[in-house]
Amino acid sequence: MRTRFQMGLDELKQKLLAMGGLAEQAVDRAMEAYRKRDLQLCYAVFEGEKAINMAERDIDELAVDLLAMQQPLAVDLRFITAVMKINADLERVGDQAVNIAQRVMDTIKLPAAELPVDIPRMAATAAGMVRRALEAFIEGKAELAEAILKMDDIVDDMNDEIYIVLVKKMHENPAVVDQALDLLLIARNLERIADHATNIAEDVIFWVRGADVRRRVGIEEHPAPPLT
Amino acid sequence: MRTRFQMGLDELKQKLLAMGGLAEQAVDRAMEAYRKRDLQLCYAVFEGEKAINMAERDIDELAVDLLAMQQPLAVDLRFITAVMKINADLERVGDQAVNIAQRVMDTIKLPAAELPVDIPRMAATAAGMVRRALEAFIEGKAELAEAILKMDDIVDDMNDEIYIVLVKKMHENPAVVDQALDLLLIARNLERIADHATNIAEDVIFWVRGADVRRRVGIEEHPAPPLT
Repeated sequence: MRTRFQMGLDELKQKLLAMGGLAEQAVDRAMEAYRKRDLQLCYAVFEGEKAINMAERDIDELAVDLLAMQQPLAVDLRFITAVMKINADLERVGDQAVNIAQRVMDTIKLPAAELPVDIPRMAATAAGMVRRALEAFIEGKAELAEAILKMDDIVDDMNDEIYIVLVKKMHENPAVVDQALDLLLIARNLERIADHATNIAEDVIFWVRGADVRRRVGIEEHPAPPLT
Repeated sequence: MRTRFQMGLDELKQKLLAMGGLAEQAVDRAMEAYRKRDLQLCYAVFEGEKAINMAERDIDELAVDLLAMQQPLAVDLRFITAVMKINADLERVGDQAVNIAQRVMDTIKLPAAELPVDIPRMAATAAGMVRRALEAFIEGKAELAEAILKMDDIVDDMNDEIYIVLVKKMHENPAVVDQALDLLLIARNLERIADHATNIAEDVIFWVRGADVRRRVGIEEHPAPPLT
């Protein structure tokens, strides 16, 4: 029979996944707003942030309730604290999407400028990192999480390349300084999203390895509650 | 008689304060590196990051150990989880100091440019927010934390002002584009530091209010452990 605590853990996992979906949607919408120069989509990102903030608080409350519910086992403890950390990172992914949407609103006001940088590709890579970091967490696989640390280097390289190209353009043609700056800052927001995915991946590794270590020394996964 | 658990809580508080000191030192050093155009100070920030990362892990481990030690009370639980969140924010303040130091290294390679923005003043405000957010936490005062939320608006305004001034300079004189960009990005790093202080302040409010609510319904601060 599943205990109330175990059902709570499942609920926590589901809520975190839903939170991840909201954060990913925010990034996707911000990018669609960028591609289509669409103000309405920018507003949709701002609206979405409220739902993300509520989901964050909700997950935190449930995590604290679970910690309070019974003498936590090492393995469950690490799972719950990992959820709390990942939760905070996902909320900040949402914040970055808001920053991007604000920047897109600025861009829309300016005349369109031809700037040879591929922001959507960088966004797809960064958003993919967030999704895969969550998958690594759900599946409890440190190897998947380690692959994400390598992807972070790719995103950093994209960011550096975009920076170089845009600064060159700014030197060549001061008339596009504002547009180039907007893209440069959007690229930095995307790099921050990749950083959050990296934080999540590190938490997964810490959680899995920590749990492994404790399992190896013979702590059962769900023993009877201790007598105090 | 103080229990092992209570002594652990005190130790956790002391370690978090020390961590805050390291994060603050990193920002101060990065700013001194900026003012003096001093490479050695940049390296000192990079070195210091290792100590910050170790301190972060150390605090996390102690927090998890304390959660595992006994059936946690609501008030202690919220304290410990707040420590874990604040810990993560302090580590990221350190990361921002590293970003600033990297940017300063870039600046040092370029010819000095006269740019009328007051970066050190913005840094002092942001670093002050971090320090005061920690004070609010140590003293458990939500009012102090609320004052920090207002300071965040001031830092955002400074950032906007610096942005406008620097973009104007970039238009006027493309020869200073690189230097202006460096300062613009340093200002953004400082704004991120203020955001982390704001996150800490929000955690303090959530922690204090949560604890208050639970206290009001009559939960004792340190009752005997429950019988399970």
